[in-house]
Amino acid sequence: MSETSLDAVLAKIDADLPQATDRLIDLLRIPSISTDPAYKADCDKAADWLVAELNALGFDASKRVTPGHPMVVAHHDGPGRHLLFYGHYDVQPVDPLDLWDRDPFDPEIQDGPNGKLIRARGASDDKGQLMTFVEACRAWKAVHGSLPVKLTLFFEGEEESGSPSLIPFLRENAAELGAELALICDTGLFEDHIPAITTMLRGLTGEEFTIHAANKDLHSGAYGGAAMNPIRVLTKILGGLHDDQGRVTVPHFYDDVDELPDAIRAQWQNLAFDHEKFLGSVGLSIPAGEQDRTPLEMLWSRPTAEINGIWGGYTGAGFKTVLPAQASAKVSFRLVSRQDPFAIRDNFRAWVEAQLPADCRIEWKDHGAGPASVMEITDPAFESSRQALTEEWGKAAAYIGCGGSIPVAGYFKTELGMDAMLIGFGKDSDQIHSPNEKYDLESFHKGIRSWARIIAKMAK
Amino acid sequence: MSETSLDAVLAKIDADLPQATDRLIDLLRIPSISTDPAYKADCDKAADWLVAELNALGFDASKRVTPGHPMVVAHHDGPGRHLLFYGHYDVQPVDPLDLWDRDPFDPEIQDGPNGKLIRARGASDDKGQLMTFVEACRAWKAVHGSLPVKLTLFFEGEEESGSPSLIPFLRENAAELGAELALICDTGLFEDHIPAITTMLRGLTGEEFTIHAANKDLHSGAYGGAAMNPIRVLTKILGGLHDDQGRVTVPHFYDDVDELPDAIRAQWQNLAFDHEKFLGSVGLSIPAGEQDRTPLEMLWSRPTAEINGIWGGYTGAGFKTVLPAQASAKVSFRLVSRQDPFAIRDNFRAWVEAQLPADCRIEWKDHGAGPASVMEITDPAFESSRQALTEEWGKAAAYIGCGGSIPVAGYFKTELGMDAMLIGFGKDSDQIHSPNEKYDLESFHKGIRSWARIIAKMAK
Repeated sequence: MSETSLDAVLAKIDADLPQATDRLIDLLRIPSISTDPAYKADCDKAADWLVAELNALGFDASKRVTPGHPMVVAHHDGPGRHLLFYGHYDVQPVDPLDLWDRDPFDPEIQDGPNGKLIRARGASDDKGQLMTFVEACRAWKAVHGSLPVKLTLFFEGEEESGSPSLIPFLRENAAELGAELALICDTGLFEDHIPAITTMLRGLTGEEFTIHAANKDLHSGAYGGAAMNPIRVLTKILGGLHDDQGRVTVPHFYDDVDELPDAIRAQWQNLAFDHEKFLGSVGLSIPAGEQDRTPLEMLWSRPTAEINGIWGGYTGAGFKTVLPAQASAKVSFRLVSRQDPFAIRDNFRAWVEAQLPADCRIEWKDHGAGPASVMEITDPAFESSRQALTEEWGKAAAYIGCGGSIPVAGYFKTELGMDAMLIGFGKDSDQIHSPNEKYDLESFHKGIRSWARIIAKMAK
Repeated sequence: MSETSLDAVLAKIDADLPQATDRLIDLLRIPSISTDPAYKADCDKAADWLVAELNALGFDASKRVTPGHPMVVAHHDGPGRHLLFYGHYDVQPVDPLDLWDRDPFDPEIQDGPNGKLIRARGASDDKGQLMTFVEACRAWKAVHGSLPVKLTLFFEGEEESGSPSLIPFLRENAAELGAELALICDTGLFEDHIPAITTMLRGLTGEEFTIHAANKDLHSGAYGGAAMNPIRVLTKILGGLHDDQGRVTVPHFYDDVDELPDAIRAQWQNLAFDHEKFLGSVGLSIPAGEQDRTPLEMLWSRPTAEINGIWGGYTGAGFKTVLPAQASAKVSFRLVSRQDPFAIRDNFRAWVEAQLPADCRIEWKDHGAGPASVMEITDPAFESSRQALTEEWGKAAAYIGCGGSIPVAGYFKTELGMDAMLIGFGKDSDQIHSPNEKYDLESFHKGIRSWARIIAKMAK
């Protein structure tokens, strides 16, 4: 691969950035919220949009039906290594809607502290990131009429809702999806300016449960004192989920948690993570996790238990002296090392049920379970990609951890025997999963250029 | 007062029951939910309806503006004692609406286990009860053209939302509202069939608070472990509101709680309260209060702390791995004896705030505060009313306690120097404050007849 041929691709990317941005805006207009059944047709529409784009680009692309939202699979031949690129076209819900400055699905280019940005739900997670790779391919095709590597593109529409169809789909299509290495674009830069390859990802188990007491809502004047209040039961149980040192109290929770290898610990110390700035940017100051761990450990290498939602009784304006019939919560666990998401689920359920008073019953709903991933970085693709990122961003790219859960990385390994390289361009300021999500145009532009450089390194 | 003149009134009540029912249904059609600002105009409409009815009946009735919902005051002269009758025309919210079998504000006469019933929000609490007295007056006027006692009727529209305008209104209109004795119709029968005069009422303090942590919703992948989750803080605090014996843990909570006098305890034991039936009817079996107290004490003479509402994070369909910026709860305390509702509020707030982590802040909202009431029953009106009730219902009327809070009884004493006699005809099966509220036609009919008998006893 000559320098000249890459330079022409990079120049084409620079010249076509306005058109690439318009295409991303088109995709962002589709409210593909996968967790809410009301948006099923929109998820389908986003998949159709991608299939049409990829076929127009010269890929052999198709939409694949699943029991949930469809997958998009696209193939393109090339001389270099066979790579599988993964992204997801579904997005998080947008509530609380009143905290958005504008319609989350009416994208707008705005001026931000880091230059221009694209404001919309999914701009960063993951439509903007997904499109960095598509646009890199487009520029290669436009300049050279071909791609330097053999590619399979694989886009999922259930990443934000526990990926229920993912494992069956990987199993049923293992021959078609198998490649030499997976590329996943769903992570971020380190502290917003240092390019990074994520080599540790936390897993996730999501649980929802409802505690039932009386068979109807009761008046606290008539029954208060004698009748069990399920919110009291719920808060008593969840109030004991952490001890005073921030440790999770569920039995056996830490059994399969490995200590950080000294080499990684040393590298992370070199990153000089500024936790005061990190927490300060969201109005906090004190690391809330296990008190004997560093903030980076809390985020990247230690498991967590979080109550993501709680509800029960009267929650409207004013007051209602009700003893509700039921109370509910959604709880998730970020997992690390060898923690088994299904064992964690079982242990949590047993721990909750052991605390349930005789007059109460419980209903469970699971919301997906995926283990943590720790990547092997012996494949030379890791070092050459780190070099490509360093060239693009002008700063030494780092191997980092990630507190988030991208279970697909683990499934590529277990189901397809394929390692994954996680490279993304999101920033902490992107407000993913929050109101006013955005993606800096810098992330989008340099992200496209980064992929163009990375696939150049993997050409034969 | 001759037997004959009362008999004619009772016969008129029996003859006019269908018309009286239609009038109640008219009033029930007005969705006068006082706690929700969306129904302000409906509260006004209910007050207007009552003013028009009472003026048509020959009362001098008027609507009185307050900073909240209006009061209705009506006067009628008569030879006997001067009595003030109190009821409230506002109703509880109707959520969860999907648990109602029909529109809560489209009343219907239905067949029930105790004969006919009227199904609607407010049928029992308190429009149906309030109208028992109005209809008793109507029958007296129709038969005799006069009333046997001097009456002031006083209807409030904020009873279900903490009565914020009540004390100022009583103070400003003390001369007009002062009478020899207050009658309050907002309580029930004992175990659905024994007529009762309630002589102990619990007080109530309502509190709402929101715990704020980060300045925006966070992604639990990016921040989980390092950022404080306000739901964790909320459940930790509220989970400690009761100890394992069901006692409230707020400091000084029991300081001003008196032990039950032996005489009252003995009388309650005679009531042979069937707590298994009481709890069994709502699907429960185990008294949930202080484990060293009887179920009737839990309900009538012991204070409580209840979480009436809790909410935070994502509560919709599916799952969202959010660390919310805030979490909220509504908590109320049922108070007894000499407990000071304002001291209880202060102690609760101090107890919560002492547990607040440094990174969190709290916002408070109060929802009213009223002390408990213990009535003096030395006024002979109590014994004569008990006799009237016994005659109407054919069972010896009892002096009982009530777990609910009717703060106006205490305010009549403190602001107007007037004792109150609480007589009502509600049943445990009325589902007040719950979906599918109803009022048995038996309660309505015999309630009207009971008041006709009681005012006959107080005639000169």
